Amino acid sequence: MQSTLGTALTSLRATKPLIHNITNVVVTNFTANGMYAIGASPVMAYAKEEVADMASIAQGLMINIGTLTAPTVEAMFIAGEAANQGKTPIVFDPVGSGATPYRTNTAKKLLTELSIQVVRGNASEIASLIDDSVTTKGVDSDTALENAQEVAIKVAKEYNTIVAMTGEVDIVTDGSRVLTVSNGHPLQTTITGAGCLLSSLVAAFIASNDVSLDSIVAALATYGVAAEIAYKETPVKAPGSFQQYFLNALYEITEEDVNDRSKVEEVTS
Amino acid sequence: MQSTLGTALTSLRATKPLIHNITNVVVTNFTANGMYAIGASPVMAYAKEEVADMASIAQGLMINIGTLTAPTVEAMFIAGEAANQGKTPIVFDPVGSGATPYRTNTAKKLLTELSIQVVRGNASEIASLIDDSVTTKGVDSDTALENAQEVAIKVAKEYNTIVAMTGEVDIVTDGSRVLTVSNGHPLQTTITGAGCLLSSLVAAFIASNDVSLDSIVAALATYGVAAEIAYKETPVKAPGSFQQYFLNALYEITEEDVNDRSKVEEVTS
Amino acid sequence: MQSTLGTALTSLRATKPLIHNITNVVVTNFTANGMYAIGASPVMAYAKEEVADMASIAQGLMINIGTLTAPTVEAMFIAGEAANQGKTPIVFDPVGSGATPYRTNTAKKLLTELSIQVVRGNASEIASLIDDSVTTKGVDSDTALENAQEVAIKVAKEYNTIVAMTGEVDIVTDGSRVLTVSNGHPLQTTITGAGCLLSSLVAAFIASNDVSLDSIVAALATYGVAAEIAYKETPVKAPGSFQQYFLNALYEITEEDVNDRSKVEEVTS
Repeated sequence: MQSTLGTALTSLRATKPLIHNITNVVVTNFTANGMYAIGASPVMAYAKEEVADMASIAQGLMINIGTLTAPTVEAMFIAGEAANQGKTPIVFDPVGSGATPYRTNTAKKLLTELSIQVVRGNASEIASLIDDSVTTKGVDSDTALENAQEVAIKVAKEYNTIVAMTGEVDIVTDGSRVLTVSNGHPLQTTITGAGCLLSSLVAAFIASNDVSLDSIVAALATYGVAAEIAYKETPVKAPGSFQQYFLNALYEITEEDVNDRSKVEEVTS
Repeated sequence: MQSTLGTALTSLRATKPLIHNITNVVVTNFTANGMYAIGASPVMAYAKEEVADMASIAQGLMINIGTLTAPTVEAMFIAGEAANQGKTPIVFDPVGSGATPYRTNTAKKLLTELSIQVVRGNASEIASLIDDSVTTKGVDSDTALENAQEVAIKVAKEYNTIVAMTGEVDIVTDGSRVLTVSNGHPLQTTITGAGCLLSSLVAAFIASNDVSLDSIVAALATYGVAAEIAYKETPVKAPGSFQQYFLNALYEITEEDVNDRSKVEEVTS
Repeated sequence: MQSTLGTALTSLRATKPLIHNITNVVVTNFTANGMYAIGASPVMAYAKEEVADMASIAQGLMINIGTLTAPTVEAMFIAGEAANQGKTPIVFDPVGSGATPYRTNTAKKLLTELSIQVVRGNASEIASLIDDSVTTKGVDSDTALENAQEVAIKVAKEYNTIVAMTGEVDIVTDGSRVLTVSNGHPLQTTITGAGCLLSSLVAAFIASNDVSLDSIVAALATYGVAAEIAYKETPVKAPGSFQQYFLNALYEITEEDVNDRSKVEEVTS
């Protein structure tokens, strides 16, 4: 499978999909720059007066609750309903779900009331979507859930969605098939928005390819390989320089890079 | 004319004008850093409780609807009225106008109810201000309007303002005279906020010089030459490094650089 | 004293304190990245529905009024009360206080109604907290108050807090003892958020050490030494590159760097 994953990147660049992002105020700039770097077309819009219109002209919608407030959550539902009506795929990033009841409850409500095609989050965020006993430490959690794969499958089935649980090894599942992606670099955890940008890229990949495990795995592998290239290229192995070279790598990465370096496996049950 | 444009930059640095920005959440950080880099003094303030006070102590006001919401639009009108009363120049950036009715209508209302000295946008955004048939693809549009110059003149006359329509070749007009600026580099289109920051710089240039075609042309030429320097200096020709070197170039660019490299022409009709 | 200040940094990295930031939209990304770089765990949360919960699980709270709006101010009070109840230390950054009555009044109200452990600001912001005659030029002020030390002491006594008044020479006082820190580099003033990030770092230092003059002085010295290292390491002495190398330096700075280079003095009265 690895040998052809890079075609999804080429398809993205040919399509240049317009992705409507309703995201958090910490990562908006980095998300927009990362999307431009890889070749997608990001737009941010938050007003309830326009989000239905914006979601309707977009090829994908990404919803992120990292700094949710009531007006933004209202906009997420309006945009989500417009996306659902237009069959526009939605990626949901439950940042910090599990940290406060407001986040957890909002995340569950979005997943219940909207048809969401992909959920991308870390292990504790994903776990919080089905288990009230999970407590996230803020928005970061490097807790390696022992039963990560089981949790991912359970969430995928519960909400009829594809789960992309990212970490040292990413797990992607639709509830039956399970794939893993082992690309990336630890310095990604030292810059804010590395996960959030990935959620937007997943939206761009499924918008320009199709809503499938393969498209999502291609997004994760491309992102991880870009991080590996960035680490290799940056003259200083530290967050400031890494962030800059990560954007460079998203711009420069080729179909061949992805084909040659992606580490994807299907888990046989 | 090119030989003296750089004096406007020197004047800006001597004046260090305080510019009140009501801008979008994607570009706030980049805008502030770009303004500091060139030598201006940016302030961001959005609360209706204070925007009139802030606009009153500022030497210029920049309004940008990139992520408009109802409370922010209300603040734009309050700040704009205070600026008008104090004869403080206003620059308006109609980000994404044409993409949704809310954006287009808000843009037109701002231009109608306030006295706005400069409108800076790309071709499709500017066109949307007079033509309801123009549809913008999100907030990006590289559509080269064939009749760009005509549209710019029409918008300038319609709203009694100066239009700076930027792209590969920038067009600046007050409705009668037309000037073009041909500086810049394509990598500018790969970083978010390149246009938004320019709108704030235009506000700084007119605040520290005067509200004139020459001051605006000087801002555009300075910005374009800085981009050319950034491209030359950056060791990696990719967005992450380019963005950093662009900020460096705005800090390092001299009056002589602008005088030597600016490509400005007056269009004779 | 200088010889052991670095231990506070080591303690911070061992503790990795979760700091809840209610900050401004200009600096959120830079603040989060700076916090990760030094080894803290930042979270941003603004909704009144969750800020009490978030402040309750955090080890420190940082409040910054740089782009205050009524909903955010309401959230600041709710979070602040939760922090006070849980004995969680609060750092307050009165960005732009003195520029508009709304800012000045909000700053004073926060200091009066909440128990705030540290106030970090520049000279004119600090002065505005007791003196209505002080007018800030936007959010920047390099005005060297002649009586800076007196003002800092007065504010510390008035609000029963520790004041960290930063500038070319930082002044830290609890109203009786006065310490100065003389580290840092002028390029810090050319990037936005240098002061705001410092306020969040102070919160991380007191959360992982204790609420004391020494912990705060350690934070200021660490930050200043990191800026000095950044200036030395960056290949281009300009804001774009400096910002990147500043993040690198916050990541790479060691206990020994702080011990060797910090310039701290106690002022004897």
